[in-house]
Amino acid sequence: MADTRVCAIAGSLRTGSYNKALLRAAQELAPPGVRIAIWDGLRSIPPFDQDEQVRGDPAPVVALKAAIAEADVLLIATPEYNYGIPGVLKNAFDWASRPAGKSVLNGKPAAIVGATVGLWGTVRAQLALRQSFLFTESPVLLKPEVLVARAQDKFDASLRLTDETTRAMLRQLLVALPAFVARFR
Amino acid sequence: MADTRVCAIAGSLRTGSYNKALLRAAQELAPPGVRIAIWDGLRSIPPFDQDEQVRGDPAPVVALKAAIAEADVLLIATPEYNYGIPGVLKNAFDWASRPAGKSVLNGKPAAIVGATVGLWGTVRAQLALRQSFLFTESPVLLKPEVLVARAQDKFDASLRLTDETTRAMLRQLLVALPAFVARFR
Amino acid sequence: MADTRVCAIAGSLRTGSYNKALLRAAQELAPPGVRIAIWDGLRSIPPFDQDEQVRGDPAPVVALKAAIAEADVLLIATPEYNYGIPGVLKNAFDWASRPAGKSVLNGKPAAIVGATVGLWGTVRAQLALRQSFLFTESPVLLKPEVLVARAQDKFDASLRLTDETTRAMLRQLLVALPAFVARFR
Amino acid sequence: MADTRVCAIAGSLRTGSYNKALLRAAQELAPPGVRIAIWDGLRSIPPFDQDEQVRGDPAPVVALKAAIAEADVLLIATPEYNYGIPGVLKNAFDWASRPAGKSVLNGKPAAIVGATVGLWGTVRAQLALRQSFLFTESPVLLKPEVLVARAQDKFDASLRLTDETTRAMLRQLLVALPAFVARFR
Repeated sequence: MADTRVCAIAGSLRTGSYNKALLRAAQELAPPGVRIAIWDGLRSIPPFDQDEQVRGDPAPVVALKAAIAEADVLLIATPEYNYGIPGVLKNAFDWASRPAGKSVLNGKPAAIVGATVGLWGTVRAQLALRQSFLFTESPVLLKPEVLVARAQDKFDASLRLTDETTRAMLRQLLVALPAFVARFR
Repeated sequence: MADTRVCAIAGSLRTGSYNKALLRAAQELAPPGVRIAIWDGLRSIPPFDQDEQVRGDPAPVVALKAAIAEADVLLIATPEYNYGIPGVLKNAFDWASRPAGKSVLNGKPAAIVGATVGLWGTVRAQLALRQSFLFTESPVLLKPEVLVARAQDKFDASLRLTDETTRAMLRQLLVALPAFVARFR
Repeated sequence: MADTRVCAIAGSLRTGSYNKALLRAAQELAPPGVRIAIWDGLRSIPPFDQDEQVRGDPAPVVALKAAIAEADVLLIATPEYNYGIPGVLKNAFDWASRPAGKSVLNGKPAAIVGATVGLWGTVRAQLALRQSFLFTESPVLLKPEVLVARAQDKFDASLRLTDETTRAMLRQLLVALPAFVARFR
Repeated sequence: MADTRVCAIAGSLRTGSYNKALLRAAQELAPPGVRIAIWDGLRSIPPFDQDEQVRGDPAPVVALKAAIAEADVLLIATPEYNYGIPGVLKNAFDWASRPAGKSVLNGKPAAIVGATVGLWGTVRAQLALRQSFLFTESPVLLKPEVLVARAQDKFDASLRLTDETTRAMLRQLLVALPAFVARFR
């Protein structure tokens, strides 16, 4: 059986991001056969402008779409800003979703995780992101929902995920990916 | 009675944007005493990075915050991308909402409108934006909800709003702003 | 290949309900191999009370769960009341979803349609219902989304669905069901 | 200054409901001038049927509407069932919201709280309820959001709210009500 190739994107730009750290934890915890490539070009994506999109994708968007196209499944780690998806992450989604109905996102399986220093574990951002994946007709893994609240208590000073419950949950999600991807072949 | 100063922002960058055109229509339809200043610096806002925000706002963000601070009320015209708020608009919101709890958005009254060439009139984007304004504790005008579906039929070739029903609805919203702002003084 | 058995439930009690009529249209339009049984016991479901649920399901709930268990897929036709799911429909869902994690809804494929005399086609109710199906880990068909706005113009006086575009969309959904169900076997 | 009359409704029927207990805590914590009357007729509300509504409200609905009409503000304590509002609560809302645009809910100020034994504190149910209050043009208090997670740790065996942080938050909400109501006179 072929490996499951995962394109992982964190929705935060700051260096000490818990969501970036969550993706590194996913790499550490991935079972054999699940290969996670972190795409970290988010900062380079220009603001979405449909006029520009019609003229042709800028180079960073070409790179983003290639990373998505090569993967079997997406793994998005999203913070929650203002009870929603970070603008920088949504902006990349807006580019990747074009042309509408025929984009690299259409039909692409996805899984969502998220970390926050707050109490509610990115519940609202994850629901909003699921809604966007409905537009692109991308099946999103239903369970487990990996919602990391009070992230400062669950990662150590070097940003390694140490909380055993969260590690087990994340592992459970990763283990589920190959069969999930197979459903949509 | 003092004028009601409105800071109007469209969530789209393209030249022929119906949401930009909706704000120009608002300027045309504003009753005496309602002054609408369109802020069009969205393209210049860099991707939100908390590290950068902690070091100090970049100049375009300083300008955005000043425009919001000087206004009595915001008027946001939002497209709907992928069943949500455009990333470029949300990114500006993410900057403006900092520092959390003490930002220029906190307690600032707001009104939301939106236009789309699709059928559902930005229903989902407007609800998502209301949810973000809950985080910033910004009261959002409840009615009328100005949802412009099939925008291509409601603006003429020069992007002037010609649909009488939509014009009446937008006027009704603008007329409601002074009393709405007064409630939250 | 075995037939695809569909349990269809309309979320409205009134006699002239467009959502009931939409399910009858589905029966009319179903392709060979798709059998739609309309479950119309919604009125008999008592108000959900966890104390009662612990003591044992009342007879109408037993009947509801049996209808769901026997089906391969659910087809829900939901009105939109107050920008959300009708209480009567959600109440039946609340019963059917118990015991949590092991209910007849868990893992059960579903599809959602909706009709309204309003403009926005039950967009908000359908999104809310998708969110509830996330809790029960029920995969919901992504597309087409069948959203019937201005239903009074699309059904005739005898409540037969006459609008060709809507009929085609509904047929497309029904045709998609067997393969959708097969994915989750 | 006149008392602020609060009509409080819990969205759960079970005897040991934490949401009912939260409303009793509100009565205990209410500052002078805030009078909280708990309306506990939820079980008696029949399933909403528009045909019946057109013929005239059943007696329990008449009582519900009277309780709302007499109050200056609503206080809703909602559990979260299936990531949404309980059907029994939404059903009462569906009745109270009629006739649309002219109901006792239209323009009525409201505040929302919620308790759950789960981790996420009824975040999703509260957002859904806010969305319904948008339909009825009811201003909903923005902050504080009282979200009681792991309720079993915050109430004692006799269902008295003992968690000091939660008590302080609830008191803060209650103290805010008179000024909130005054804004919308």
